[in-house]
Amino acid sequence: MSSQPEPELTSRQYQRKVAAEFTGSLLFQFLAGVAALSSVKYGLAAAALGIGFSYMVISFALRGISVGHLNPAVTVSLLVTQPKGYNIDWVLCCMYITAQIIGSIIGMFMVVFLIPMDTPPCNNPDGCNPVDPLVYYSLFMARGTLTGSHGLSVFLMEFFCTSALVWVFYGTSVDPHGKAHNLAPLAIGFAMIVGVFAEGPGTGASMSPARSLAPAVVKGSYEYLFAPLAATLLAGIVTGLVYNYLFLFDEHVPDLYH
Amino acid sequence: MSSQPEPELTSRQYQRKVAAEFTGSLLFQFLAGVAALSSVKYGLAAAALGIGFSYMVISFALRGISVGHLNPAVTVSLLVTQPKGYNIDWVLCCMYITAQIIGSIIGMFMVVFLIPMDTPPCNNPDGCNPVDPLVYYSLFMARGTLTGSHGLSVFLMEFFCTSALVWVFYGTSVDPHGKAHNLAPLAIGFAMIVGVFAEGPGTGASMSPARSLAPAVVKGSYEYLFAPLAATLLAGIVTGLVYNYLFLFDEHVPDLYH
Amino acid sequence: MSSQPEPELTSRQYQRKVAAEFTGSLLFQFLAGVAALSSVKYGLAAAALGIGFSYMVISFALRGISVGHLNPAVTVSLLVTQPKGYNIDWVLCCMYITAQIIGSIIGMFMVVFLIPMDTPPCNNPDGCNPVDPLVYYSLFMARGTLTGSHGLSVFLMEFFCTSALVWVFYGTSVDPHGKAHNLAPLAIGFAMIVGVFAEGPGTGASMSPARSLAPAVVKGSYEYLFAPLAATLLAGIVTGLVYNYLFLFDEHVPDLYH
Amino acid sequence: MSSQPEPELTSRQYQRKVAAEFTGSLLFQFLAGVAALSSVKYGLAAAALGIGFSYMVISFALRGISVGHLNPAVTVSLLVTQPKGYNIDWVLCCMYITAQIIGSIIGMFMVVFLIPMDTPPCNNPDGCNPVDPLVYYSLFMARGTLTGSHGLSVFLMEFFCTSALVWVFYGTSVDPHGKAHNLAPLAIGFAMIVGVFAEGPGTGASMSPARSLAPAVVKGSYEYLFAPLAATLLAGIVTGLVYNYLFLFDEHVPDLYH
Repeated sequence: MSSQPEPELTSRQYQRKVAAEFTGSLLFQFLAGVAALSSVKYGLAAAALGIGFSYMVISFALRGISVGHLNPAVTVSLLVTQPKGYNIDWVLCCMYITAQIIGSIIGMFMVVFLIPMDTPPCNNPDGCNPVDPLVYYSLFMARGTLTGSHGLSVFLMEFFCTSALVWVFYGTSVDPHGKAHNLAPLAIGFAMIVGVFAEGPGTGASMSPARSLAPAVVKGSYEYLFAPLAATLLAGIVTGLVYNYLFLFDEHVPDLYH
Repeated sequence: MSSQPEPELTSRQYQRKVAAEFTGSLLFQFLAGVAALSSVKYGLAAAALGIGFSYMVISFALRGISVGHLNPAVTVSLLVTQPKGYNIDWVLCCMYITAQIIGSIIGMFMVVFLIPMDTPPCNNPDGCNPVDPLVYYSLFMARGTLTGSHGLSVFLMEFFCTSALVWVFYGTSVDPHGKAHNLAPLAIGFAMIVGVFAEGPGTGASMSPARSLAPAVVKGSYEYLFAPLAATLLAGIVTGLVYNYLFLFDEHVPDLYH
Repeated sequence: MSSQPEPELTSRQYQRKVAAEFTGSLLFQFLAGVAALSSVKYGLAAAALGIGFSYMVISFALRGISVGHLNPAVTVSLLVTQPKGYNIDWVLCCMYITAQIIGSIIGMFMVVFLIPMDTPPCNNPDGCNPVDPLVYYSLFMARGTLTGSHGLSVFLMEFFCTSALVWVFYGTSVDPHGKAHNLAPLAIGFAMIVGVFAEGPGTGASMSPARSLAPAVVKGSYEYLFAPLAATLLAGIVTGLVYNYLFLFDEHVPDLYH
Repeated sequence: MSSQPEPELTSRQYQRKVAAEFTGSLLFQFLAGVAALSSVKYGLAAAALGIGFSYMVISFALRGISVGHLNPAVTVSLLVTQPKGYNIDWVLCCMYITAQIIGSIIGMFMVVFLIPMDTPPCNNPDGCNPVDPLVYYSLFMARGTLTGSHGLSVFLMEFFCTSALVWVFYGTSVDPHGKAHNLAPLAIGFAMIVGVFAEGPGTGASMSPARSLAPAVVKGSYEYLFAPLAATLLAGIVTGLVYNYLFLFDEHVPDLYH
């Protein structure tokens, strides 16, 4: 089975997959962005559940088309480890990442158009506190209170939380020993929720290069972008290689345990 | 398989389906309505989880009978795209929508009967702040702080969030490539939760024509009804057509990826 | 298949089922009771998620033994409707209900022993506000702010929320058209969560005769017990009969839709 | 089937399992620890969902490798009851527990390194209240307001909540009558959430010896460690034996009920 080449994708199949990553990333950035703004008034749980459930439901919807990466860190990781059944070559990897980034930027523009900086969402009839522009953008970027003075902390937090996300992706969607079956998008979405609960207050909880890049492009400010971008991509690659070495060494282990 | 006509439904099967949409919509409007009132005191998470979990559990219960549309935007979308296995013709579409709207109106009357405007639900022994009548009704309608002055914002917010909901419905319940299987109602319910987190503070989060129409009928006020009604129906139709074009063009793609 | 009698249970199988209902009800009353007390400080979501997830996880654990009724309203409903595969006769019904009630009372005693009325749970190093004894017990009983002056409201709220719970039980665990499969306990648990979000602030959210009876016995106060007891039992019976009439009339409908 | 011995594990299979418990425990202690710190500002739901979802997603990822014990109380329980298909002998038990404890200690060191005691996580631009060192550590240990003066309460609370967790593990992952299938990690994760909602305010919600031991080692303070350590281990053993006696007496019961 491993000796014969996997079948080539037709051009139409490529298009379907890339269209899926594009529309999925657009919807994710939009929904997660508006939900993150709600957290100004409604606290961390609104951000964590809004962002994580967006990731989850879009993963469910894309599962049969592009497997729902929605995240360049996942796509690059799969390019490096080349797991069976994923067929990620350089061309598809570049097309996925381009679709993810352009989709995220458009989704971010939709957020900014619908919720201008001086009209934060609220139900208060006698007016809302305008959101501080710095807070407004930091909600979409990996820039919490630790940023600037604590660049290394942001890097490490993003690295560990993205690593956990990618690790759950491998354990439920790549590993042939995995037992999650159709629950894989649920586990991945909950891993995103955990990440927001864990690092949200400290860093803004990016866990995806596209999620950090999009607001930077929309704002035209690339100042604090390096740490989350490097951390999430590196976490994807390192976690993939470690998982591969530790757990995927031999697929033919007899299945003794449930 | 596509050349032979699908079997006709008997009159009894029609009745069962329509009864399912009626009872489901009634329960949904009642449970979601009372939960939305709790959010006056308990915040956005109470509304989001109460509304979304209602949608989810009723979808689970109706899955084998009427597939649990519970939402005219979904029913109209399926009428337009005519996916395989759904058999939605003009007659069934009208019966579904009538059942959904009448069920929702009765459910809304139950809310108003049980929780009169001057007795909001609370646990406070020394009395509760009476809910502002405007807030009281706005909790069931797509009318948040943006309304009136920002009709276009309400329209766009409702359009995008309903579109995400319908898109998840197609990806998990219509697309033959879908991998959600029995998890489809879970994904749809979480998509509703995401929508409330995203647009709840801004618009009241309708995402269904029936959910906006019912309180308008009960209150006898049709002032701000156009934006959510048009947005949700249009989102259903447009999302169905786009999904159909992008992802359902050819069912016979070999299944290369999991 | 329907013409031949279902096999008799051995005495040992009876014992296993009854032991399951007893231990499950004990754990549920204990976990849900302590979680409900947390809501004094942490709000409605703590109560709703604590109570609903308790119900859910115990239902998952008991699914293969007693199907996890945990609730006399469910057991009585199944006695009345006699669905296939459930084998609930008068003897088993009485044993189930006895086990549920005794288990709940012991679980409630554990709560009272571990969290005495003057030592509410809190993390505050400089002391906690002692919980009002009335609030303390009302957290476990169907007695919210509406009680006393609004006995009918409590009755109707309990009736509708219990009805939704039982309806989801039938749609996912009894109806042969159901598609929830192993997700049934999840749907039932979320239905409980929805009920707490909906009626928790108004009535205390019983939805089970055992859950109301246990604190009344422990406190020795049976004053407001009639409304929730009658409402939940009646909701179980009426919902079962209506579901039976509307949806279970003919099991042999060909499965046209997914 | 029960007469022939189960196959021996190769050395490589042992390593894979132990590596899984090590990496899983490390990630769990880190994610749960940072999420617990968020609860200082964001309340009990942040801690409960952050801790429980961490446990859930890591259980999903490890399901096919080591079954994701992540908890010495579970491992010891399985050693005592020796259920079919688990193959836990003394050697594997010791390796699992060593891996769980060392992983947890490293994860705890990561928390302390990334979030020093005087820089609690917050989004507040004008500074955060420094977390009280006592609160800081108590968030990771079974030491709430009840500790010290109420050692027995801590013991009993930990015993009952751990017992519920282990009981759900048996009902979904050990019992051959179980119907949870791939949902077992979801049920176990929700059981952890329930435990935090129930006992979190009172005891800090350990439910695992490793989760209490790790912060004690990092802080070098073993003062209040006895109660949670003894309670969780004892709960694992007692619950396993009781479950075994009540429900696992005979695997060959015909499956009458769904």
